[in-house]
Amino acid sequence: MSHPGPNLAELGEHNVLRRLRRFCADVVGDDGAVQSLPAGEQLVVSTDVLIDGVHFCDRTLPPRDLGWRAAAINLSDLAAMGARSIGLTVGLTLPASTPWPWLEALYQGMADCLAHYGGAIIGGDLCRGDQRSLAITALGAVPLHQALYRSRAQAGQVLVATGIHGASRAGLALLLDEPPRDFQCGQPDEHTHLWIQAHQRPVPRFDAIATLRALPGRSKTIPETIAVMDTSDGLADAVIQICHQSHVGATLQRSRLPIPPGLVDTVGVATAENWTLYGGEDFELVLSLPPAMAQAFVEQLPSSQIVGQTILEPTVRLIDDVTHGADIPLDQGLGYQHFC
Amino acid sequence: MSHPGPNLAELGEHNVLRRLRRFCADVVGDDGAVQSLPAGEQLVVSTDVLIDGVHFCDRTLPPRDLGWRAAAINLSDLAAMGARSIGLTVGLTLPASTPWPWLEALYQGMADCLAHYGGAIIGGDLCRGDQRSLAITALGAVPLHQALYRSRAQAGQVLVATGIHGASRAGLALLLDEPPRDFQCGQPDEHTHLWIQAHQRPVPRFDAIATLRALPGRSKTIPETIAVMDTSDGLADAVIQICHQSHVGATLQRSRLPIPPGLVDTVGVATAENWTLYGGEDFELVLSLPPAMAQAFVEQLPSSQIVGQTILEPTVRLIDDVTHGADIPLDQGLGYQHFC
Repeated sequence: MSHPGPNLAELGEHNVLRRLRRFCADVVGDDGAVQSLPAGEQLVVSTDVLIDGVHFCDRTLPPRDLGWRAAAINLSDLAAMGARSIGLTVGLTLPASTPWPWLEALYQGMADCLAHYGGAIIGGDLCRGDQRSLAITALGAVPLHQALYRSRAQAGQVLVATGIHGASRAGLALLLDEPPRDFQCGQPDEHTHLWIQAHQRPVPRFDAIATLRALPGRSKTIPETIAVMDTSDGLADAVIQICHQSHVGATLQRSRLPIPPGLVDTVGVATAENWTLYGGEDFELVLSLPPAMAQAFVEQLPSSQIVGQTILEPTVRLIDDVTHGADIPLDQGLGYQHFC
Repeated sequence: MSHPGPNLAELGEHNVLRRLRRFCADVVGDDGAVQSLPAGEQLVVSTDVLIDGVHFCDRTLPPRDLGWRAAAINLSDLAAMGARSIGLTVGLTLPASTPWPWLEALYQGMADCLAHYGGAIIGGDLCRGDQRSLAITALGAVPLHQALYRSRAQAGQVLVATGIHGASRAGLALLLDEPPRDFQCGQPDEHTHLWIQAHQRPVPRFDAIATLRALPGRSKTIPETIAVMDTSDGLADAVIQICHQSHVGATLQRSRLPIPPGLVDTVGVATAENWTLYGGEDFELVLSLPPAMAQAFVEQLPSSQIVGQTILEPTVRLIDDVTHGADIPLDQGLGYQHFC
């Protein structure tokens, strides 16, 4: 048995909920949880659903990593809005045969992530169903008028990514043992661990927002002309969404694609660039900033880099400044669609 | 075709989300939704998951009723906490073959309910999965120090139910065409419609809390010695939960069971009493109130009635004041458990 211990049916709902209580804030246990929000802060709410076989599976995510990841991707949405974490509610669907240690590890993973980045598990529900799923709602708080939106980019700004992109996709390929044809497997590789880590333990970039707010010479007020989005559906998708909602366009530079170190050597240029643009699930942030602010930002945040700029013309293109080929339009298709 | 129109796979995720936008508050469309909470109010959060085949099916709940019901049962949790509704987030899992009109009707039903009782759809996620499910998180606001809890009952109080119990269970039996042996089917019955309505269109009892707060001679401050819980898992379960969390016991009187009119004639005394105690899903409230307050409350709220009282001894019993039989312990088993 890979999962010894009683299953949920053997424990019964009340015992399962009682055992989960230790992972939860004291507020849990009534019809609802009561939370205070300090004066001068607004509530930020975000919801994500993760389905077994669509967003995760046992091969790619042991339960403790799944718990971390489920919490982290929701906290990433809060970070993208400029908010701090208050906590999560967890709507779980599990087969009655689910071993208790699996559920315990899942909650431990969520608790680990919240211990790192703030907040607590403040509510939830647990139901029997055939297909495992987690529906998480993250609650955050942001100072009045300091929320960050996708829709406030302006032409002539600089696009910054807070980190490399494509590492999570590379980690997924390794975990699924489904490398592309030219994946150089088996070689000792100091990067492999980082790619798997990127997939299993994504980091919500609250630090990037703190960096933005602490830029020298700036007050803590964020101007109306900054756009931020997280890159859950890929770098290209984030740039496209910011552009669509801000009614601007963008050019990315091929020479500036934030490709993970070692990835080109492992999977080749074409796959590496594809994964960087479209791999998704890196949960970094893309920011559209006035040029001077962008420059100061990348100097303060070593993981970040400038990837392109916004333009008036409402198209999103990749400029080939490497081999000087034709521009590649990026907004013909959209990012990963779960219903396609 | 009972559901003409394109399915979700044919529309694609972006088109589906675009079409759903008209049911949602303007805040939807970023990484998170920003909401203000007036000074002096606290946030109340509650989560429920509904699974196809466990909590609903096509035979019992057409999509518009399912939407109403999913919203209403979450708002019922807010009502039980003494909170007003801010809104809902909706984490949906649906097969790609789901017809768009089904999803549209589901959202229309949620919007109908929110239009009646307050709040808006303020966020969500939509994923492909084999088994339909809805994970809803309700957000509410309650004035500081006025939240109502399960844990504050005291011995010597009076237990009040805000309405009849068992009607939803009777409606379910009619909808499933699975009446018990002595169900008098086919007779013209003015009650049948109400029982089906009770199952498909439950009413969150915000009115009961308004009545409580408006009782003559009372300030708007609720004392520390009131307990409230909604009866989603049945009348007996709610009384047991209040007692367990308040460290008191209770006696219910058989003569005062809030049995729906006509139910005894239709299913017999034993089934009617069983459904009233254990049927569940009526989404009424049970309140433990000081005697004078209870009396004033039932005079002001015609649907409500006194059902029993709290006692020091930590047991929950049904007193047979009808045939003067032995007391029936109610806390030997617990209410409906989804994992049993």
